[in-house]
Amino acid sequence: MRVLGVDPGLTRCGVGVVEGTPGRPCTLVAVGVIRTDPDAPLPDRLLRLDTKLTEYIARFAPDAVAVERVFSQHNVASVIGTAQASGVAILAGARADVAVHTYTPSEVKAAITGSGTADKKQMTSMVTRLLRLEVAPKPADAADALALAICHVWRGGTQARIAAARTRVEEKGTRT
Amino acid sequence: MRVLGVDPGLTRCGVGVVEGTPGRPCTLVAVGVIRTDPDAPLPDRLLRLDTKLTEYIARFAPDAVAVERVFSQHNVASVIGTAQASGVAILAGARADVAVHTYTPSEVKAAITGSGTADKKQMTSMVTRLLRLEVAPKPADAADALALAICHVWRGGTQARIAAARTRVEEKGTRT
Repeated sequence: MRVLGVDPGLTRCGVGVVEGTPGRPCTLVAVGVIRTDPDAPLPDRLLRLDTKLTEYIARFAPDAVAVERVFSQHNVASVIGTAQASGVAILAGARADVAVHTYTPSEVKAAITGSGTADKKQMTSMVTRLLRLEVAPKPADAADALALAICHVWRGGTQARIAAARTRVEEKGTRT
Repeated sequence: MRVLGVDPGLTRCGVGVVEGTPGRPCTLVAVGVIRTDPDAPLPDRLLRLDTKLTEYIARFAPDAVAVERVFSQHNVASVIGTAQASGVAILAGARADVAVHTYTPSEVKAAITGSGTADKKQMTSMVTRLLRLEVAPKPADAADALALAICHVWRGGTQARIAAARTRVEEKGTRT
């Protein structure tokens, strides 16, 4: 399973692609940051974000896109821009007919470190170790995007197995 | 000048197209509301919004798109969804290579009624009169979208004249 993780942001949007199966170490496919000029008009910034994300999806053909869920508890000054960027990221996945899932920061932290309150340093350290990288991915937005992708490989895989098990039980129920 | 006004929202997104020139009464071209199912997954909702807005732009070929600017002072519970919808609306205009402008609610109110603190009833009444309609446009989201479009025809026109005058002055400056 190949997953594109997106840490949405208007000035810096982290993107990371990993490949893996639940419970096993994932492999790094690609990582980067899409930047847009804070002085550019908003339509140009959103268009650049959309173009770059669409390129990532076309190039790496992920099976799913995992986007960080935006909360109103986020930094009030930047929450609108972050929400607009997340809307563009979710739409880019949907337009390419790729399944899109959103995860809260604490869901991602819990999946990667076992603790929903892990700090940045711990997260980056775990992402580096889980992907068996020699140096930590930088900047923080890139590491966060990889964490989202790993989270989805593991959680998505579990959810898929639960769904499949449910289907089997229901089919059995129908047959008896 | 033909303008598409968009009052962004995830459950109800108002859209209105008007045609006019600054200082003269505008003409209604089209008005409607794009609705998405609150129980549907977010990617499906944003995709529907994008598809419908893109259809509106292709069908009515506006010279500009005017979108209401989202503030963090908005209803905190719905601000994220509204911001995501506004991001999709701004992107739809940018992708179609149409100029996109954003206006605050008080800018729109001031343009339509002369007061930045006008209430809903006064706004709807003025939109109905300015477009010489026999009945008020409904629901409120549709009237708000028309108000945004009228605001842009008037303000955008003024700004274009100022920009043109500036260019003339600068060209004159270069020549001397």
